[in-house]
Amino acid sequence: MPPSLRIPFNDMLAQFRRILIALDFEESRAAQCARIFAETSLDGVYSHGVLRFPRFVDYIKKGYVDVHAEPSKIASLGALEQWDGNLGPGPLNAMFAADRAMRLADEFGLGLVALGNTNHWMRGGTYGWHAAKAGYGYLGWTNTEPNMPAWGAAESRLGNNPLVIALPFGDEAIVLDMAMTQFAYGKLEDYTLQGKKLPMPGGFDRSGKVIDDPATILDSMLGLPIGYWKGAGLSLLLDLMAATLSGGRDVKRLGELESEYGVSQVFMAFNLKNLPNAAHIQNNLARAIDFVKASTPISGDQDILYPGERALKTRAENMAKGIPTPKEVWEKIRGF
Amino acid sequence: MPPSLRIPFNDMLAQFRRILIALDFEESRAAQCARIFAETSLDGVYSHGVLRFPRFVDYIKKGYVDVHAEPSKIASLGALEQWDGNLGPGPLNAMFAADRAMRLADEFGLGLVALGNTNHWMRGGTYGWHAAKAGYGYLGWTNTEPNMPAWGAAESRLGNNPLVIALPFGDEAIVLDMAMTQFAYGKLEDYTLQGKKLPMPGGFDRSGKVIDDPATILDSMLGLPIGYWKGAGLSLLLDLMAATLSGGRDVKRLGELESEYGVSQVFMAFNLKNLPNAAHIQNNLARAIDFVKASTPISGDQDILYPGERALKTRAENMAKGIPTPKEVWEKIRGF
Repeated sequence: MPPSLRIPFNDMLAQFRRILIALDFEESRAAQCARIFAETSLDGVYSHGVLRFPRFVDYIKKGYVDVHAEPSKIASLGALEQWDGNLGPGPLNAMFAADRAMRLADEFGLGLVALGNTNHWMRGGTYGWHAAKAGYGYLGWTNTEPNMPAWGAAESRLGNNPLVIALPFGDEAIVLDMAMTQFAYGKLEDYTLQGKKLPMPGGFDRSGKVIDDPATILDSMLGLPIGYWKGAGLSLLLDLMAATLSGGRDVKRLGELESEYGVSQVFMAFNLKNLPNAAHIQNNLARAIDFVKASTPISGDQDILYPGERALKTRAENMAKGIPTPKEVWEKIRGF
Repeated sequence: MPPSLRIPFNDMLAQFRRILIALDFEESRAAQCARIFAETSLDGVYSHGVLRFPRFVDYIKKGYVDVHAEPSKIASLGALEQWDGNLGPGPLNAMFAADRAMRLADEFGLGLVALGNTNHWMRGGTYGWHAAKAGYGYLGWTNTEPNMPAWGAAESRLGNNPLVIALPFGDEAIVLDMAMTQFAYGKLEDYTLQGKKLPMPGGFDRSGKVIDDPATILDSMLGLPIGYWKGAGLSLLLDLMAATLSGGRDVKRLGELESEYGVSQVFMAFNLKNLPNAAHIQNNLARAIDFVKASTPISGDQDILYPGERALKTRAENMAKGIPTPKEVWEKIRGF
């Protein structure tokens, strides 16, 4: 790992905001977008936060992302709405769609916003944390460019299509945020930056051999689907469902573009506070989480964690000590 | 594999129907339940069809399943409804809930039925095929008794919580039906019956070692989560969401019962025919499926299949030749 700085959260937020305003974002949109990138970094998802920010800037400069565009409604079926992202900034579009799903859930018990023609939402978990901290259950996913082979296939024709499921948990949330590859491409970038092998096989080389070298997998773009045929099947269905509900691009069509933009996403919010069992939900979740965490560990010193638990620890540590950032990445960002 | 008979579909259907009527099912409910078990067998999911039928009878005799019970509505939030399964027959309750979600989707664009206190739905894909063949998108899951460890844990405190996603495809459907274990327990039973090892590791023995012997995994009840920590996390969130939305039991509480009954399930239907892109959905799906199937295979003679494709072939073959059934299982069923 190259020499790393510890950047205070507010400094990172201010830099991102400054750069986005210089890129012609309106004030409030710059502030919101900067906060999403900074909070993602704060929670330890560097690959979709500070490490990704330069590419986000690059995509804006290349015209893949229209900083002024906002989603427009194509159709309403009641609790289900179809929106066009108009190639606006992915995190702003996604936050809009999650909020809109929450408003539909207020009215109909649940709400679904299918968003086509949008851009990479960065950390998918952002919208899960957001909805769950506001008291909603949340289920959402995105498609991606092709980066994972079908079962038995020698080339990537599936996306890794991250899936997010979240529930409120005390003042925080339980948030699952998982790509369909055994390792997210951002994680492969982390391991490559750190010069490490993966702890278990994570993809294929160009000859179809299962390997644990992250740089070779980033080059072949042949990630290993979780559970082999199962993750491959789940990825395909998530893609087809997102493209069908949004009327947007599927993975095939995303692969025909020169870069990854114009993806399809689904955002669902569930109204928990109007359920007859609302008063018991938090106690029941705490009991269920306690039960799992009290499992006997395989090795004595291993903590059993629930999804989202590690982020809370990292968030506290990074808020106190600053966000670990490779020096050359931070210099690049300061130079924008 | 023990000597196997080929039972004609209509003979199997008639036997199941006869037995269910003898167990005091009303005529029409016996016919529907028998059809679900027979069609599951026809499609090649023997573990949740003919091989499971004797246990279904046993659960009725033990009083876990109330043959007369029907779901009753607890609450309606609009497009989301909470129902109590009243411990009725799992397949009948599940079919009712899927149909109810479809009616809600007609009205609101999508519908969600959360069903608590119900019983094993047998093949989860049944309800995906049903909704998709009627033109709806479908997403559903169930929780189960504890049968899979959390990541790093030496005992099973998660369910394998099968997840089903389906879309209409021509006159048929694309149907993903996957448990969170690398191999469904029914598959482990199939391999055990055939005296075979698994093609890759599928669980742990009681000492925590990763193994490929299906009988040992059936004994330890320590199935391997797909994608290690990812499948473990997905299983947990599916359980918590099903129990929260239905107000029913979570995996912890299911584990406190003497057998698996009273589970929690979620059924979602999406109204595709009212989407503005409705006229293009089938062409787009066909193009996407063609793209994936045209992948270069790793080995020359391997077909790349989409989820549900194999079932169509098995269905045709079993309709023509009869449904493969171990002789002693069929004799037991005929003796009921």
